[in-house]
Amino acid sequence: MTLHLNHFFSALSDPTRRAVIERLSFGPASVSDLAAPHPMALPTFMKHLAALQRAGLVHTVKKGRVRMCHLDATPLLAAQGWLAWQRRIWETRLDQIDQLALALERETLHDQ
Amino acid sequence: MTLHLNHFFSALSDPTRRAVIERLSFGPASVSDLAAPHPMALPTFMKHLAALQRAGLVHTVKKGRVRMCHLDATPLLAAQGWLAWQRRIWETRLDQIDQLALALERETLHDQ
Repeated sequence: MTLHLNHFFSALSDPTRRAVIERLSFGPASVSDLAAPHPMALPTFMKHLAALQRAGLVHTVKKGRVRMCHLDATPLLAAQGWLAWQRRIWETRLDQIDQLALALERETLHDQ
Repeated sequence: MTLHLNHFFSALSDPTRRAVIERLSFGPASVSDLAAPHPMALPTFMKHLAALQRAGLVHTVKKGRVRMCHLDATPLLAAQGWLAWQRRIWETRLDQIDQLALALERETLHDQ
């Protein structure tokens, strides 16, 4: 899980790779169609694709002479889980601070 | 926004940095308390802390001789927004595929 999250967040830290995920959300695409909008050499683009594959976000299937890329959103769900968990802890703490402030305020009013 | 997401996802791609966020979710901590559980030299730990600060996830306040670290969860919310958006597009597409399959199934039954 730790290694998965490392690869996943690392894959998302680059705008080209996020753009590829955004494109694949709408449906599969060939490597050349995916590469077309990005102003870089094909070997550089292939490195980005490899990072996405390592993160488990993209898998490819060869159909004749064309390699088609598909999105696998499973790691997205795992990362959403981690972020939601952090947010819950953080919000619970803020709630506790609010309650403490309210209790102190009541106590102060009671003392007056 | 793009630059923010780059720094944010890059910050989360390392287990030490995720552990620091998990720790700070429960409340502020001094740099030395934060560094204590991690088996690395202090300058290395400080580099991790700098990456978290660059991502806007941690800010520090000096209290006397102690530097206290606080979590700022705002970038967490932005990243959750990006992930949720991707998931919505992806799920809408899966729904459309389901509906298409259902329509084809009905058509086949109707033809029989």
